[in-house]
Amino acid sequence: MDLKHELSKRADVFNIELEGYLKNGQPKSLYDAAGHLPLAGGKRLRPSISMLSCDVVGGDVKRVMPFAVALELIHNFTLVHDDIMDKSYLRRNLPTVHVKFGEPTAIMAGDLLFAKAFEAMHDISDNPTVFKRVDSGLINCVREVCEGQQLDMEFEKKQDVSEKEYLEMIRKKTAVLFKFSAEGGAILGGGTKEEIESLSEYGESLGLAFQIRDDYLDMSSDEGTLGKDIGNDIRNGKKTLIAVRSINNATGDDKKLLEKIFGNGGASEQEVKRVYDLFKEMKSIEYAKNTALEYSIKAKKALHMLDDSDAKQILIELAEYSITREK
Amino acid sequence: MDLKHELSKRADVFNIELEGYLKNGQPKSLYDAAGHLPLAGGKRLRPSISMLSCDVVGGDVKRVMPFAVALELIHNFTLVHDDIMDKSYLRRNLPTVHVKFGEPTAIMAGDLLFAKAFEAMHDISDNPTVFKRVDSGLINCVREVCEGQQLDMEFEKKQDVSEKEYLEMIRKKTAVLFKFSAEGGAILGGGTKEEIESLSEYGESLGLAFQIRDDYLDMSSDEGTLGKDIGNDIRNGKKTLIAVRSINNATGDDKKLLEKIFGNGGASEQEVKRVYDLFKEMKSIEYAKNTALEYSIKAKKALHMLDDSDAKQILIELAEYSITREK
Repeated sequence: MDLKHELSKRADVFNIELEGYLKNGQPKSLYDAAGHLPLAGGKRLRPSISMLSCDVVGGDVKRVMPFAVALELIHNFTLVHDDIMDKSYLRRNLPTVHVKFGEPTAIMAGDLLFAKAFEAMHDISDNPTVFKRVDSGLINCVREVCEGQQLDMEFEKKQDVSEKEYLEMIRKKTAVLFKFSAEGGAILGGGTKEEIESLSEYGESLGLAFQIRDDYLDMSSDEGTLGKDIGNDIRNGKKTLIAVRSINNATGDDKKLLEKIFGNGGASEQEVKRVYDLFKEMKSIEYAKNTALEYSIKAKKALHMLDDSDAKQILIELAEYSITREK
Repeated sequence: MDLKHELSKRADVFNIELEGYLKNGQPKSLYDAAGHLPLAGGKRLRPSISMLSCDVVGGDVKRVMPFAVALELIHNFTLVHDDIMDKSYLRRNLPTVHVKFGEPTAIMAGDLLFAKAFEAMHDISDNPTVFKRVDSGLINCVREVCEGQQLDMEFEKKQDVSEKEYLEMIRKKTAVLFKFSAEGGAILGGGTKEEIESLSEYGESLGLAFQIRDDYLDMSSDEGTLGKDIGNDIRNGKKTLIAVRSINNATGDDKKLLEKIFGNGGASEQEVKRVYDLFKEMKSIEYAKNTALEYSIKAKKALHMLDDSDAKQILIELAEYSITREK
């Protein structure tokens, strides 16, 4: 089983569907901006999870395609708007949409991707009751992603964020869409109540593992030098699991150091380095790595009740990949 | 029949429903920003049109309320994002959302209003087939509003906009949501095919009348002095019906004047005044007033086949109000 090959096979099928929703719209400038990010490729994790979840319960993958498209469009809509909010210049080695097309068009492009996602949903050929269930779940996801993104911004200004609050934030910001990719795929595949619940749990744990691994990767630099992003995250007071755990467990001088430097936009290179070294000394970076591992194990366990199949094996390997990936 | 009283009665009923969707959400900062504009009041035209259209075909108005809420939330979502794009400081005499809460939160607040609109739709108690029809129509509207807004921005940079292109732009930007307010209200009210079509046509014509009246009001200044907005619209090259008609019909020196001044950000007060006087001389301002009148008459005609009722009378008076209103 070659996970990369299996995912890329599904991405190829998916990309043809996706293009149909974004090509040839008018005005062209808006559709060019809207297509900039989603048509630039990517791993298509959420669509693949929905396709595999449909497959693993014995459903016909064709029926899940409009939902798969909607998931990817929503993911990209949030990226386009996040990049404006974060003033990011690059994504996937391309200029971000607002950099290339200007901010007004980028705001509209994000809105259009959101609208196109829920237009795509109406191409689901299942009966209206099934449609309504999946559509309702998906719009709830978008609301939670908005709430999670806002929490993430707020936490930068808030010193005392508990681990529980952090987990709730990433659950909303990241995990709900993974969760519902799997859940919706299983619903559209005609899965039983138990199968749907199992895949829902799988998706949520997988999403948490992915996000925490992201936190870990952002903070682990094997070049011996501190990356620009690490410095920015420390100066901005970004509440990753690593930061949250360190702040909550530090005492004495360590505590004072974090209070002074973490979230201090004017901190020097040397000060940032001291905070980073403290994270390492406190084993918070390792802690994040292990927490991601725990969620990955939880994701795999959730699949136990499903019959063995190729799709199940790919989902298992995806859970392993979520915590071994290096980018 | 007192139109203002009839609309305000419906707005009162509506406002209670609306509040339920926006109060007490978390994080509070996001819900405060999202509620800032919609909870500040307003005429609630789109919700009222949907309620009246349900009523006029003999439907139970209660059944239309989630749809009415969705319409108002969508309208407000577009306003919040438009204000960011246009860098507007005030709306309804209040600071705009991005001025009060900052741009990142305002982008999120708009996104949240969009999501809440389609969450509200899922509270429609009709059978899933009816729900699907109205939900599908509404998401198409949002897509068209995005396209129309982009056209509006593009037209500012484009000199040769035809009247047909202008009408297509305002149809998308403004009229589709009026159209579907009436159409969706009639569908949820259990109207016949003919009733639904009549109300759809009513709503579209009403929306066009409203937008063109807006163009007219923005350009008609009875204070003898040019308002700030008139100057900005001329300097920005805003393609109102008045501008489009003038540009397309001007010849000789008039044509040269428009080419030099209209859309010229550095135009002097005096130059702006000359363009404004030309609009008047060419009777383009009067032309816009008359075009709005034609759409208002068309809207009323579309109601002919409906049985007489209080609701019908209110819809008729609303069409008259659309072209007599002074703000």
